[in-house]
Amino acid sequence: MTYTRGMRSITVQEIVALPGMQAAEDVVATERAFSRLSGFDEAMGEAIVFAQDEASLVKALESKAGLVLAPLRAETEDVRVLRVKHPKLAFALISEWFDQFEEVRIHAAAHIDPAAKLGVGVSVGAGAVIEAGAVVGDGCIIASNVTIYGCVTLGARCLIQAGAVLGAMGFGYVRASSGRYTRFPQRGTLVIEDDVEIGANTTIDRGALGETRIGSGTKIDNLVHIGHNCNVGRNVVIASQVGISGSCVIEDGAVLAGQVGLGDHARIGPGVILGGASGVFPHKRVEGPGQMFMGVPAEPVKDYLKTIAKVRRLK
Amino acid sequence: MTYTRGMRSITVQEIVALPGMQAAEDVVATERAFSRLSGFDEAMGEAIVFAQDEASLVKALESKAGLVLAPLRAETEDVRVLRVKHPKLAFALISEWFDQFEEVRIHAAAHIDPAAKLGVGVSVGAGAVIEAGAVVGDGCIIASNVTIYGCVTLGARCLIQAGAVLGAMGFGYVRASSGRYTRFPQRGTLVIEDDVEIGANTTIDRGALGETRIGSGTKIDNLVHIGHNCNVGRNVVIASQVGISGSCVIEDGAVLAGQVGLGDHARIGPGVILGGASGVFPHKRVEGPGQMFMGVPAEPVKDYLKTIAKVRRLK
Amino acid sequence: MTYTRGMRSITVQEIVALPGMQAAEDVVATERAFSRLSGFDEAMGEAIVFAQDEASLVKALESKAGLVLAPLRAETEDVRVLRVKHPKLAFALISEWFDQFEEVRIHAAAHIDPAAKLGVGVSVGAGAVIEAGAVVGDGCIIASNVTIYGCVTLGARCLIQAGAVLGAMGFGYVRASSGRYTRFPQRGTLVIEDDVEIGANTTIDRGALGETRIGSGTKIDNLVHIGHNCNVGRNVVIASQVGISGSCVIEDGAVLAGQVGLGDHARIGPGVILGGASGVFPHKRVEGPGQMFMGVPAEPVKDYLKTIAKVRRLK
Repeated sequence: MTYTRGMRSITVQEIVALPGMQAAEDVVATERAFSRLSGFDEAMGEAIVFAQDEASLVKALESKAGLVLAPLRAETEDVRVLRVKHPKLAFALISEWFDQFEEVRIHAAAHIDPAAKLGVGVSVGAGAVIEAGAVVGDGCIIASNVTIYGCVTLGARCLIQAGAVLGAMGFGYVRASSGRYTRFPQRGTLVIEDDVEIGANTTIDRGALGETRIGSGTKIDNLVHIGHNCNVGRNVVIASQVGISGSCVIEDGAVLAGQVGLGDHARIGPGVILGGASGVFPHKRVEGPGQMFMGVPAEPVKDYLKTIAKVRRLK
Repeated sequence: MTYTRGMRSITVQEIVALPGMQAAEDVVATERAFSRLSGFDEAMGEAIVFAQDEASLVKALESKAGLVLAPLRAETEDVRVLRVKHPKLAFALISEWFDQFEEVRIHAAAHIDPAAKLGVGVSVGAGAVIEAGAVVGDGCIIASNVTIYGCVTLGARCLIQAGAVLGAMGFGYVRASSGRYTRFPQRGTLVIEDDVEIGANTTIDRGALGETRIGSGTKIDNLVHIGHNCNVGRNVVIASQVGISGSCVIEDGAVLAGQVGLGDHARIGPGVILGGASGVFPHKRVEGPGQMFMGVPAEPVKDYLKTIAKVRRLK
Repeated sequence: MTYTRGMRSITVQEIVALPGMQAAEDVVATERAFSRLSGFDEAMGEAIVFAQDEASLVKALESKAGLVLAPLRAETEDVRVLRVKHPKLAFALISEWFDQFEEVRIHAAAHIDPAAKLGVGVSVGAGAVIEAGAVVGDGCIIASNVTIYGCVTLGARCLIQAGAVLGAMGFGYVRASSGRYTRFPQRGTLVIEDDVEIGANTTIDRGALGETRIGSGTKIDNLVHIGHNCNVGRNVVIASQVGISGSCVIEDGAVLAGQVGLGDHARIGPGVILGGASGVFPHKRVEGPGQMFMGVPAEPVKDYLKTIAKVRRLK
């Protein structure tokens, strides 16, 4: 999946009309088109940049960018400025617009079983494997060397980055008195809903008997592990190297920072924020929309910081 | 490696005769055959379910399952019940029986060097690479996109899930006074004994000079790292994202929960249980069969929980 | 990339003349050549071993090795001894000499886009993918099933082990008030300088707008994650399962032990040593050349050990 850049261009009129864009009425009067999203330093005339606050607006206006997305309250006469409600979101929406012109291609060296079902507009990279029985929804991008086992169903517009493994057998064994382990059946499924994005070398296991499910709009970073029979809600954010044991429930809008660990059957309430490397014990519950928790076991961030301070003051 | 389901069926007579099965004498009188292992909710007449205790037995009997594996002490007249000593193990043993009918296949897009040796009944998925010199024992399943370097010997009946990397060079360098690092020779081997199972995207490095060894029956989850020259015993369980530095020794029957970290040359005694995200410092030893340890550095779980309680009570 | 062994041999004269080798003048008088680097136990006459101290020298001399690299101060009359300033480094330099005779080969099952640029003497393993636009410097070794996205530039003599993913899109999203996330543009580059080594299944993301950069001579272990826009200096050592969030700066010569976690925009000063599983909060700085830090958040190791002791003494 090579990312082509700067091949297309977008006009201010097109920007203002993008779904989700909230621009001021006093739109910059320009017919000019822009072909690139850029940081300040490397911006040239064809580039769009964005400024979130006064300090970054100064830098943006000093740059050579042809279009500057600025907050509604921005005080400047610079004709390159387009005022929008949320400049960073506007910048991302323009990027999304560019994305639609990316090449759709199934690489000749992709290994797609004839008994797998692919939707329309699906891209598959070299070395990616899609096994018999798998279903891949419309507009998905499956990068190079991804593995999708036959028990997986992917919704529309999912992005699966290189090396991710979807639907491997979960980690469940039964110990005999001899000490020998027999694998518990790992015969379930993995359902990934629409608009889910999954990072490089992440692994998500199928259900043992039932299903593992990842809700629509959820974003998962690299090297994350999600065990069998987990139920992850919608618009959840899971950063790199998070480890989620089997049968956990993570409700809508939760945010898990890097290296968080959840014991099996843990339950994370809607909108909860777990700080980096925090942990939740098996079968425990963490609740509180918009509240941040840290430490092992996770406690409210305020308490956590007090605990750290007290401990380091000990004599 | 697509997992076919429900193609075969097993009778009660066959179940009772399985090696390791310990069934009551009053066997259900049925010639009926069952083709599926199932949870309660989705169970239909061809399905087998299991119940470990009274509460789950009630649910099992309410389900439409055709056969219910129940504990020896179960009090019920339901003709669908087969009493066994260990219902969950019985369920797993039946799953193992079904496994033998899985298709054995070397995918046309597997990359197996002519100078690699494969046993009989080996399956290899698309995109898997087995390099010159590697030895793969009878009945192994090598999933898609696995990499097996030439220095690796696999025993019989190993399961290697997608994306795992076996036998990469270890992480050892010598620092010159200039600050430049030169790689220490990584010319050893990796020996994996019989019945080892290795999860998706896990990495196990070859020995630097000697060998890295994984003992028979050991089960390893996804995204685990095992460094060069480690010696892992038999029937060890290593959960997801555990990191084991070079030259560690883990003795038979130990259990390492998710995200555990071991410094180099750490030694874990037989049957020790390390709780999630616990850590052992380099060259340290943890001993105590059946005892659980937690925290960093790992301490007995009782002490660990007391420590947590005391710390959070501090003023 | 199978590692051939023992095919070439090296004489004492050649050893003494290696760049970086600091040998005593009283060189062993031998024309004999050695073809293998070995540990003590398996050493035969064609093998070279090394001893760092008196205890290991005794073992080395008891072995059947044909050549023993020993410290300058070693007191022995054994004619197999070659005294060098730094025996372990000498051993590694000999290994590096052997490496030059490894076969250079682009596997027929490597997937290299015609629009990728490869230098001379590059090896590429089966299933490795190098996408359009990628640049791979002279003498690089790209192992099996590696993925190199088109936005990546690799310097000379880099070693990329199996399953590593270089240049995937970073993890950055903008949240709309609806709760929906839109991907922030991930259109930057990944620059890896000369002599960098990267472990199996490690992931390093491209910059969002600018670049991610890994400095020359830096060594990275397996299953490490490095986020978008990080700037890692020269001769940095990063052990297994370290997680580095976006926009971190790690200066020259720093050492990060296994499972370290850095929040976004953290800054690690030159020569700093972070102990296993330690953590640095977002936007924080850790400074002190040669100083070791541990814990979360990381504190000087002395303080850390005191803290642990105090906590466990609490009543």
